Amino acid sequence: MSFIDATLCASLKIIRALHEEENIFEEKGIGFGGDRSLKIDLLAEEFFIKALSHYGNIFSEERGFIDNGKNKKIIIDPIDGSYNVSNHIPYFGCSVYLENEAAVVVNLSNGDYFVKDKNGKRFENLFRKPFQSNYRHDVILFEKAYKNPDIVAKLNKHNLKFRAPGALSLSLCYGEFSKAVIYKGEIREFDIAAARFYNSECFWYFENDLILMAPKKKDLEEVLSIIKE
Amino acid sequence: MSFIDATLCASLKIIRALHEEENIFEEKGIGFGGDRSLKIDLLAEEFFIKALSHYGNIFSEERGFIDNGKNKKIIIDPIDGSYNVSNHIPYFGCSVYLENEAAVVVNLSNGDYFVKDKNGKRFENLFRKPFQSNYRHDVILFEKAYKNPDIVAKLNKHNLKFRAPGALSLSLCYGEFSKAVIYKGEIREFDIAAARFYNSECFWYFENDLILMAPKKKDLEEVLSIIKE
Repeated sequence: MSFIDATLCASLKIIRALHEEENIFEEKGIGFGGDRSLKIDLLAEEFFIKALSHYGNIFSEERGFIDNGKNKKIIIDPIDGSYNVSNHIPYFGCSVYLENEAAVVVNLSNGDYFVKDKNGKRFENLFRKPFQSNYRHDVILFEKAYKNPDIVAKLNKHNLKFRAPGALSLSLCYGEFSKAVIYKGEIREFDIAAARFYNSECFWYFENDLILMAPKKKDLEEVLSIIKE
Repeated sequence: MSFIDATLCASLKIIRALHEEENIFEEKGIGFGGDRSLKIDLLAEEFFIKALSHYGNIFSEERGFIDNGKNKKIIIDPIDGSYNVSNHIPYFGCSVYLENEAAVVVNLSNGDYFVKDKNGKRFENLFRKPFQSNYRHDVILFEKAYKNPDIVAKLNKHNLKFRAPGALSLSLCYGEFSKAVIYKGEIREFDIAAARFYNSECFWYFENDLILMAPKKKDLEEVLSIIKE
């Protein structure tokens, strides 16, 4: 089975577990990445470890580094948006990156998925045909808006609309259809590796604790100059 | 067919149209409610008018009041979250309220739906079993955060996390699983009528341009006192 198919199968198992397992939002301590781990985070990680250990060593948000004696590295965020899933906010996913080769980001709430490998990139849905239209690119996705009221004020001054949906890897993928993505906070490999590979042809700006991404260069420049005011 | 079944059937038609129709994000002027109307807004409204005119007069966001010579009133927002759907942000729905009798709010992105009638309220999904767990109630849904940097700053001072997903009727329904919902902006009947009926046993606070809702009274009081600081 290809790496991408193995990842998508594991994602389907996670979706099934979300709907069938009990007590999935129980706290189970703090993960390697520093966030609380819920039962569903650990379950999801187990599915990926079982499905993907064959393909490389694994660096994952809950357990950290797992040496499988391979010469490739896989970076995993088993559940991106744990706060969302445990508050029933339908925007959470998983993010899987096989270094320099493939990226898979799945929205576990609705089955949308983003895939890139040597055959190029594609957007699909696990359950039905995705909808394809000319998107309007007039809304910003702003992750960690709640920690950055100063940036909220600057965007408002310029009458820019944003959404703050709460799962960075998803927003960095969906960002190809929006005006721009803003993230201000601690940057962690788990959250961004797959999306960065997936949307590598978009425009990106990185600083210590700031990420901007936009499908159009002029939008990146506009948003950056507003943030820097 | 019952009013609720007719509404759910129309919702399924809208979902199909999203996936099959072309140019659904073309602008078609300004609707009765004051927002731009897209082709998908008008299509969705047509489905509801066809399916529901039999049950009452219709007051809808795009066309305003439609007198069907009935003695009941139906309040409809055909697409709540038009900016989201046209930027491919997966959080948009429809909101339908038969005055004093029934409410149906559907998340058109993933099939989640909220229904209330004389038999009580229920949360379901059009396509699969919903997941049922004890939700954690520790995230706030804040609609129109982008227009209210002062409230963002106050919430941040108190270390409260929020999400700003961008469809008020959905957030007022999903809010039964979160800590609270905040909305600050012009209050319009289309956006809130169905959700208010659906979550009538939650705690609500209304002012001119402010809505708060919370499943627990102490959370409502906490968030209100922070906003009023």
